[in-house]
Amino acid sequence: MPALEEKQLLLIPGPTPVPQAVLRACARPMINHRGPEYAKLQNENVAGLKEMFQTKNGVLVLTCSGTGGMEAAVVNTLSPGDKVLVLVIGAFGKRFLKIARAYGADAEEMEFTWGEAVDPNRVKERLAQDKNKEIKAVLVQHNETSTGVYNDLSVLGPIIREHGALSLVDAVSGLIAIDCQTDNWGLDVVVAASQKAFMLPPGLAFVCMNERAWEAYKKAKMPRFYFDLGEARSFAEKGQNPWTPALPQVYGLQEGLRLLRQEGLQNVFARHQRLADAVRAGCKALGLELFAKPANASNCITAIKSPAGLGPDKIRKLLLEKYGLVLAGGQAHLKDSVFRVGHLGYVSETDILGCMAALGAGLKELGMKVDPGAGAGAAVASLEGAKC
Amino acid sequence: MPALEEKQLLLIPGPTPVPQAVLRACARPMINHRGPEYAKLQNENVAGLKEMFQTKNGVLVLTCSGTGGMEAAVVNTLSPGDKVLVLVIGAFGKRFLKIARAYGADAEEMEFTWGEAVDPNRVKERLAQDKNKEIKAVLVQHNETSTGVYNDLSVLGPIIREHGALSLVDAVSGLIAIDCQTDNWGLDVVVAASQKAFMLPPGLAFVCMNERAWEAYKKAKMPRFYFDLGEARSFAEKGQNPWTPALPQVYGLQEGLRLLRQEGLQNVFARHQRLADAVRAGCKALGLELFAKPANASNCITAIKSPAGLGPDKIRKLLLEKYGLVLAGGQAHLKDSVFRVGHLGYVSETDILGCMAALGAGLKELGMKVDPGAGAGAAVASLEGAKC
Repeated sequence: MPALEEKQLLLIPGPTPVPQAVLRACARPMINHRGPEYAKLQNENVAGLKEMFQTKNGVLVLTCSGTGGMEAAVVNTLSPGDKVLVLVIGAFGKRFLKIARAYGADAEEMEFTWGEAVDPNRVKERLAQDKNKEIKAVLVQHNETSTGVYNDLSVLGPIIREHGALSLVDAVSGLIAIDCQTDNWGLDVVVAASQKAFMLPPGLAFVCMNERAWEAYKKAKMPRFYFDLGEARSFAEKGQNPWTPALPQVYGLQEGLRLLRQEGLQNVFARHQRLADAVRAGCKALGLELFAKPANASNCITAIKSPAGLGPDKIRKLLLEKYGLVLAGGQAHLKDSVFRVGHLGYVSETDILGCMAALGAGLKELGMKVDPGAGAGAAVASLEGAKC
Repeated sequence: MPALEEKQLLLIPGPTPVPQAVLRACARPMINHRGPEYAKLQNENVAGLKEMFQTKNGVLVLTCSGTGGMEAAVVNTLSPGDKVLVLVIGAFGKRFLKIARAYGADAEEMEFTWGEAVDPNRVKERLAQDKNKEIKAVLVQHNETSTGVYNDLSVLGPIIREHGALSLVDAVSGLIAIDCQTDNWGLDVVVAASQKAFMLPPGLAFVCMNERAWEAYKKAKMPRFYFDLGEARSFAEKGQNPWTPALPQVYGLQEGLRLLRQEGLQNVFARHQRLADAVRAGCKALGLELFAKPANASNCITAIKSPAGLGPDKIRKLLLEKYGLVLAGGQAHLKDSVFRVGHLGYVSETDILGCMAALGAGLKELGMKVDPGAGAGAAVASLEGAKC
């Protein structure tokens, strides 16, 4: 096993690799989080985040993981007993469901086959049945990290808006890797986090609420203190946080946003598309079966079915120990049948080629009849094709 | 105003200055938080934290500010409607009260004159009246940051234990600056945070629960998800967190704990005592009046009354702009009458001398009749005296 300091190729769905310039920014000396320098920094960050969320509304920065951001979305817009519809296509859908229930929501689960996206027609039908508008919110993932499937929010957003329920969107792993037009698609609350496509260390969640969500906030009675977004908004007006923020990540965010704005959001989407296509092409060339249906395969992460007789842990262990290649395991009931390649954030084309070559070599070493270079070759061809 | 990159002398009660070795550690590349290297790191950190908390029980590491840790202490041990006694000697006592009430506790406030410590006799009397043992918990600060006063938990801990209520201790700014013997004094839940005496950037809270607290956890019905300490404990058993942890601070914690263990906990206390004495001596020599009664003056932070006719903001602004010296303002109703010097964490004797010299010069510049070097001189004498 490589020691902590040894070089690894980290391709998990978060934390993702962090550019050296961002790491350096994280190591800046501390400043007063109630002072003028901090306010300037926070205001600059919020302006950048608004671009990334494609919104004219404010974006709040919380010190917590993405899960904390999901909790904030729930407790700031709902009251105990409120009926909510939770769309589940994987483990993070289940998590959203648990959060809603932990705070007393009357949560109805609408589960879809894992590996597929939410079927908008089923949602439309269910909401049409709700004549009395009892459903206060629909909870949904932008990208489901456990299965590598994204939901088309350009379709779901308007369906939910037509009914009148709030849409609470977990875009933790998806935002800026896959298009998410917060305002245009009528998404009421959108949550993201630092350690995904933003190329930052974990420690910050970002939450964007529109006016409809703030109206709901006024009536929402779920208890909250640390995650009270009204407090966060009121402090944000003076460029502060209610509580002491995670300064290294706030410094890193400034640097990361500079890099992202320089690249341009459309180019960021295209980069994720290109790498995801290469991973999928490479896996297929190695004879591996992908878990996600192609129609909604995620540009953030690819879940791969473990070949017959070869557990994912065995593959991951060999790749870690021999190649320093860090892949993710399966979640929930997929633990023993799936492994996952993250290709979001600060990941280069050559990282993907190295991953595919190591994966091919590893599979051969584990006894699979496979041309070990086939994956890398197909990935190269895919990347070349994307440039034509 | 110094630019972000310019050198400042940061003497606020957190974030405190961070040693270069810790900042460097914070900038390490990301690793898999579900992998073997991370588990090793977390287990090493927990072992170090147990020394710092003077406990044989586990210490949980949460990604949040100290306030998040305070919320975790409340929601994991109490149910809505539970009667609790909140001892208030300043703004953070008020905060504990707000958290308890936000989650539906029937919270009774016992307030003491700000600038003084909790009077143990009043607590003893109140608890003696509670024949039916309705009071489930007593909430108290170890060190009250807003006033610069510490409570003697070696006395309060046993009083609370005798009654049978749980003690929930906010030791966010106090831990390892001032002795806090978690186990010996019978403290049931103790909360600390990274950006204080631990010399780390903000982003982590530390929570220690003993068996009595875990018994209470089993019955506690306040809603929680992100801050569910049962989940945190269960993941800690495999060297993990339930949610993605703030890796830069976790790396920094490893380095910071090495430095602290090398120095030795008793020496860490003595260092804080020495610096605090020097600050108090220096302020008096400058004719400044201290806000805290001497008996329980804090070794973490000193609150200073603004001289007549001179608002604290005016003093702080001059010191920031001319000397790069960053002091804290007053909190709550002390906003316009008090400013504060933090002397906890990675603060050297010469930092304190520089602070006293700048403060003397600044006061003179603002029109006070004062020998500008008197503060630094008295601080030198105090530091010299401590070495005899």
